[in-house]
Amino acid sequence: MRSEHGKKSLDMHRKTRGQFRSAPAVVVRNRKELSLAYTPGIAAVSSYLAKKPHEARNYTMKGRTIAVVSDGSAVLGLGNVGPYAALPVMEGKTTLFKAFAGVDAVPLVLSTQDADEIVETVVRIAPAFGGINLEDIAAPKCFDIERKLIERLDIPVMHDDQHGTAIVVLAGLVNALKVVGKTLARIRIVIAGAGAAGAATAHMLRAAGARDIIVLDRKGIIGRKRKDLSPHKKELARFTNPSGLSGGLREALEGADVVIGVSGPGLLRAADIRRMAEGAIVFALANPVPEIMPEEARRGGAAVIATGRSDYPNQLNNSLAFPGVFRGALDHRVRRITQAMKVCVAKNLAALVKRPTAEKILPDMFDKRIVPAVARAMKG
Amino acid sequence: MRSEHGKKSLDMHRKTRGQFRSAPAVVVRNRKELSLAYTPGIAAVSSYLAKKPHEARNYTMKGRTIAVVSDGSAVLGLGNVGPYAALPVMEGKTTLFKAFAGVDAVPLVLSTQDADEIVETVVRIAPAFGGINLEDIAAPKCFDIERKLIERLDIPVMHDDQHGTAIVVLAGLVNALKVVGKTLARIRIVIAGAGAAGAATAHMLRAAGARDIIVLDRKGIIGRKRKDLSPHKKELARFTNPSGLSGGLREALEGADVVIGVSGPGLLRAADIRRMAEGAIVFALANPVPEIMPEEARRGGAAVIATGRSDYPNQLNNSLAFPGVFRGALDHRVRRITQAMKVCVAKNLAALVKRPTAEKILPDMFDKRIVPAVARAMKG
Repeated sequence: MRSEHGKKSLDMHRKTRGQFRSAPAVVVRNRKELSLAYTPGIAAVSSYLAKKPHEARNYTMKGRTIAVVSDGSAVLGLGNVGPYAALPVMEGKTTLFKAFAGVDAVPLVLSTQDADEIVETVVRIAPAFGGINLEDIAAPKCFDIERKLIERLDIPVMHDDQHGTAIVVLAGLVNALKVVGKTLARIRIVIAGAGAAGAATAHMLRAAGARDIIVLDRKGIIGRKRKDLSPHKKELARFTNPSGLSGGLREALEGADVVIGVSGPGLLRAADIRRMAEGAIVFALANPVPEIMPEEARRGGAAVIATGRSDYPNQLNNSLAFPGVFRGALDHRVRRITQAMKVCVAKNLAALVKRPTAEKILPDMFDKRIVPAVARAMKG
Repeated sequence: MRSEHGKKSLDMHRKTRGQFRSAPAVVVRNRKELSLAYTPGIAAVSSYLAKKPHEARNYTMKGRTIAVVSDGSAVLGLGNVGPYAALPVMEGKTTLFKAFAGVDAVPLVLSTQDADEIVETVVRIAPAFGGINLEDIAAPKCFDIERKLIERLDIPVMHDDQHGTAIVVLAGLVNALKVVGKTLARIRIVIAGAGAAGAATAHMLRAAGARDIIVLDRKGIIGRKRKDLSPHKKELARFTNPSGLSGGLREALEGADVVIGVSGPGLLRAADIRRMAEGAIVFALANPVPEIMPEEARRGGAAVIATGRSDYPNQLNNSLAFPGVFRGALDHRVRRITQAMKVCVAKNLAALVKRPTAEKILPDMFDKRIVPAVARAMKG
């Protein structure tokens, strides 16, 4: 069943043939203009960069353009639908980059889903770009791909499904904690989902000062005793679950202060929320159907509720972070996006809401202050 | 020494930070517009393409966008200057694609110069694009790269240094022959240079009906008796030099009707032109300094002279061909650009000049009739 939005979007895309367009900054209406934009004048720019390739950021698109790259292996909630089905999302993302932050962006979707081939491909196309936004790449390969690219490239690389989500969760949590009068260092946080978003959120919350984080995958609580853990889950086990809990969601939620759902629809019931401590914070981020609907979370006693949806208060959306992150990375010539920068982005985002309430923990996505505040955090 | 054009172009590129810009076709100013350009609406487009990937041309940038790809191994007359120095040229080319033919284009420069890696990389990034313009890739690897990509992709691939040049040479020659009253099937054509442009021009002229073509590389006339020929030169030897000539430029030019220089500056003298038949046609295409300056060719008795320069009559420039070739390829959903299409492009270009003269064999580059005439030829 296609939603009203969906039908309109499909119609729009057929009419426009997608969203991406190239639009030269230079006009060519006559021979004189041609001689500057192309031969013979352009030879001077090439000769200059042949001698000083590091000046490419000042004389080419590299200083202002990023690539948005996907292999289509984990697109929205649709799963592994391949490059063609991923392309509209990447085009949409380049639209947001430009609209929100003036970042020029190129969608690239790959005909391979092999991790090493993805890495090689991105390394080979990197010279034209000042940053790489990885998008909708499945876990666990997304972790390796991102790590290898960060090692091999001298431009910033960020897998938005991981870090964009983690940044916005931390920003929302900072203000939600103010609403309920608790502090990050003294609460128990349960993360339901150990994929790209779940793992990155755990790392981020820890970097921001959280001490008691419990992460669950489909088999239950991740802990050092589990023998079935993949490398990235083993890493999670090293710094999460300090009390050595085992069991499932029920055990994890007992007395917890925060639950962050980054798994799938319908995971949580009101009864689960009732197990949590007073002033429970519920972030149910599965899209479009969250782990628990806000009404039911409220019935369970949740004090602050956020989802990924635009039709409820407190929409936690990556769009709050990624445009400003790359704007700042380009402006400040960032080579690597550090955990400290991302934590600072989250805090700057949170600070834009002076008096957070249960109904408003983060600024409106169209708030013009967001991109400058986020970009500032990228100074490092 | 930097020319005036060069200085201005360098200044302009520093001010604009290159020429490429992305410019979304879709506006996002509020939540409603966001819900169409991105989530949740975009999910409908992705779902649709997951089921019908071949519809990508109708719903994404693939139907209207090409990639302009170089490894920087043979940039303008500068040689192997690498990806950063190649980038301004690729950006300039995307400017021309848009300005002349409304074709959206993305510059991509590669950090590899290995032929197989180039092929793999282009195959992997192909899904987002409706065509691939290869640019400034050195011979002989350019031949293999193009051939393999044509085999592996279902979108048109063209190495412009080869075929763009060949098309424009044939177009110019068709009209130059009218000026001197000769026909293609009855003349001897000498091509000085067996690189990308020389080889493609030989193939094209043969496809158009030329029977007596002589190609020279640095060692002299290419013929079946030569033992030192690379594969692409062996192929040339199979259909050129029907009289079995050997020797150098002097021997080749004796009584020839046409000489096409695609090698380097200063190769020819007036005395060489005097060896040619009455009504000699001289295309001296090395840039910026041609194989022979027009004044000297005139002294040698040339009847029609063309160069790549804008400051003399008869500028033979690829810009006459490539924008319309890809415009037509996209419009007519061409999967492979055939030799017959390219010959037809050349003839359509030539036909735009009703009464060619020695001073005007081709239309002005800014003639609005060019792109429609070229694109029409791509119907196949």
